[in-house]
Amino acid sequence: MDVMRVLHMVGGAGDTSYASNSSLQKIAISKARSMVEDSILNLYGTSFQESLNIADLGCSSGPNTLLVIKEIIDVTHERCSQLQRSMPELRLFLNDLPGNDFNTIFMSLPAFYDTLKEEKGLPLGTCFIAGVPGSFYGRLFPINFLDFVHSSYSVHWLSQVPQGLQSDMGLPLNKGNIYMAKSSPPAVFKAYLDQFQSDFSLFLNLRSEEMTCGGRMVQTLMGRKGEEPSSGDCCHLWELLAQALKGMVSQGVIKEAKLDSFDLPWYTPSVKELKAVIAMEGSFVLDQLQITEINWDTNDNDDSEYYFFDKKASGQNVAKYVRAVTESLLANHFGAEIIDELFEKYAENVGEHLAKEKTKHVNIIFSMAKKV
Amino acid sequence: MDVMRVLHMVGGAGDTSYASNSSLQKIAISKARSMVEDSILNLYGTSFQESLNIADLGCSSGPNTLLVIKEIIDVTHERCSQLQRSMPELRLFLNDLPGNDFNTIFMSLPAFYDTLKEEKGLPLGTCFIAGVPGSFYGRLFPINFLDFVHSSYSVHWLSQVPQGLQSDMGLPLNKGNIYMAKSSPPAVFKAYLDQFQSDFSLFLNLRSEEMTCGGRMVQTLMGRKGEEPSSGDCCHLWELLAQALKGMVSQGVIKEAKLDSFDLPWYTPSVKELKAVIAMEGSFVLDQLQITEINWDTNDNDDSEYYFFDKKASGQNVAKYVRAVTESLLANHFGAEIIDELFEKYAENVGEHLAKEKTKHVNIIFSMAKKV
Repeated sequence: MDVMRVLHMVGGAGDTSYASNSSLQKIAISKARSMVEDSILNLYGTSFQESLNIADLGCSSGPNTLLVIKEIIDVTHERCSQLQRSMPELRLFLNDLPGNDFNTIFMSLPAFYDTLKEEKGLPLGTCFIAGVPGSFYGRLFPINFLDFVHSSYSVHWLSQVPQGLQSDMGLPLNKGNIYMAKSSPPAVFKAYLDQFQSDFSLFLNLRSEEMTCGGRMVQTLMGRKGEEPSSGDCCHLWELLAQALKGMVSQGVIKEAKLDSFDLPWYTPSVKELKAVIAMEGSFVLDQLQITEINWDTNDNDDSEYYFFDKKASGQNVAKYVRAVTESLLANHFGAEIIDELFEKYAENVGEHLAKEKTKHVNIIFSMAKKV
Repeated sequence: MDVMRVLHMVGGAGDTSYASNSSLQKIAISKARSMVEDSILNLYGTSFQESLNIADLGCSSGPNTLLVIKEIIDVTHERCSQLQRSMPELRLFLNDLPGNDFNTIFMSLPAFYDTLKEEKGLPLGTCFIAGVPGSFYGRLFPINFLDFVHSSYSVHWLSQVPQGLQSDMGLPLNKGNIYMAKSSPPAVFKAYLDQFQSDFSLFLNLRSEEMTCGGRMVQTLMGRKGEEPSSGDCCHLWELLAQALKGMVSQGVIKEAKLDSFDLPWYTPSVKELKAVIAMEGSFVLDQLQITEINWDTNDNDDSEYYFFDKKASGQNVAKYVRAVTESLLANHFGAEIIDELFEKYAENVGEHLAKEKTKHVNIIFSMAKKV
């Protein structure tokens, strides 16, 4: 599978689109807000540059894309007002894979610019927003170009399905699973970790070429709290999806070999693993790091005082946002015709699971500065 | 009508898409090639900059978009090979209105980058391609940013339908017409010229802010050879479309008032008018200017040795490319349901006309340098 050509969030604004099903990612962005603010203030408050080049890597499409951009603009504008300085020119580059629905983002820009003008009196020419299609596992920007890099829920996507998930004879090692699972053999855990180390190291190396000295980066990715790679806080989501696929195998809808040859290009590192790559690659200094948790059922959040658990609704909510991010990969491998049924089963599995145990996603949020 | 929000070439790659019906624009681009080459060589050959910021304004979507980019890369690469210098970093910005189909362009980029690597050995990181949605009648880029600006078949589009096409009482002055026509009253010609002067002057002024001193621009737009504003070489195309609309008015499919209130945001200047705005605005020095003609029926070109005229085929060919550029405006005003029938009638009208008289589009191609 050519991840770069296949992977994309579901486009448009329809019922199954990422734009309509990205409440989880929205919460993750809000949790990183103060770290983004600190980084921007540190960056701008020491240099007072006339312009800042800023990239959001893995921007996706939908309300979250402009939410991040708005946060960055807000905090810069607030700081400048306090200091009675005029705004720097913000050059904002939205990056995602070539299959991302940039059209929907672009069509919302005129209204976005109007809002900036109405709310803050910012004229056209304060912010320049451009789209940069391409994989962040390749060079995207000129050398010494970027002052600030933001990336949320993107770098847990690997550049490819790990190599080493087959035996020397070419037989699948991760039979019946689609990610690291309790029943996966050790070689599978090793293959996933190797791929993450190689990809994340490459990511940092490429960004260090593209960023200015002292430039800052804030990242949020899904991870796990402990070292055990198949722990529930990162893998159970996918085990339930594998169960739904297995159900379709036993019904004869999907061939067993087809399931055995599918694995997700995804990795949820521990903090220790993450720090090890950053230290080994050597271009960045870790500044802040924080672990937060978000309930699988995003309707059950800190603000929802009157939330009550409904197995069916919770299962469907989770299934919808998982579908919005995985449909392109699953449809490419299994065919588009299985998707509706698969996610019906998955919603049931998730509902049953949540009835037994409230489960949370583990998020690692961290900020770094490029070494001078 | 809010031109910025409504106007876009027909997206995708279907039968009526711009991508499938832009042979005219392709010929226009090929006619400007030597002027693009001269400008790039002049620019690069005097400065040998490490990077060049290049914008294509009104890039549209389809094979023509990357054709221009490829030309620019080709000529730079060739020159560098001759001089035994390494390639400058080309930062290519594709601009069009927010409704443009950027997704289709972006999805073709991985293959495009592969071609550059195979054909010329250019690694990723030589060319950075980004999309910049927005109207070129507003600021699009930072100050002193662009080294080279290219624009083909874009600046004949006005920022709005000219004001002054109604009487003081609000009655339409250009009844039965959709552009300047033989039967248009003098106020209509004045309104169109005023709008062009104001728009083109604004365009130059904005670009002069965005361009570096000595930066170069190459433009191709549709124009007319003489001073008579309703001359056939620019207006007949639209008179035949107005006739088709009138036919639908007499059949009761379109209300007369609806036709009377529709006018195109379009202007085809004479060379004299164009030069006058450039001189008056004052930021640019005209370098080269050339008039070329392209047959309405693009199958009848210099290469088509065995071409024979077929009224029906010619009419349909012209109707298809006119539809691909005007459908968004017409559907917005008259409703999408009239479009198929309208362009069937239009194809007939064009075929009848071409049977009587071989007709050509007049193109003005010119290059300029920003004053130092």
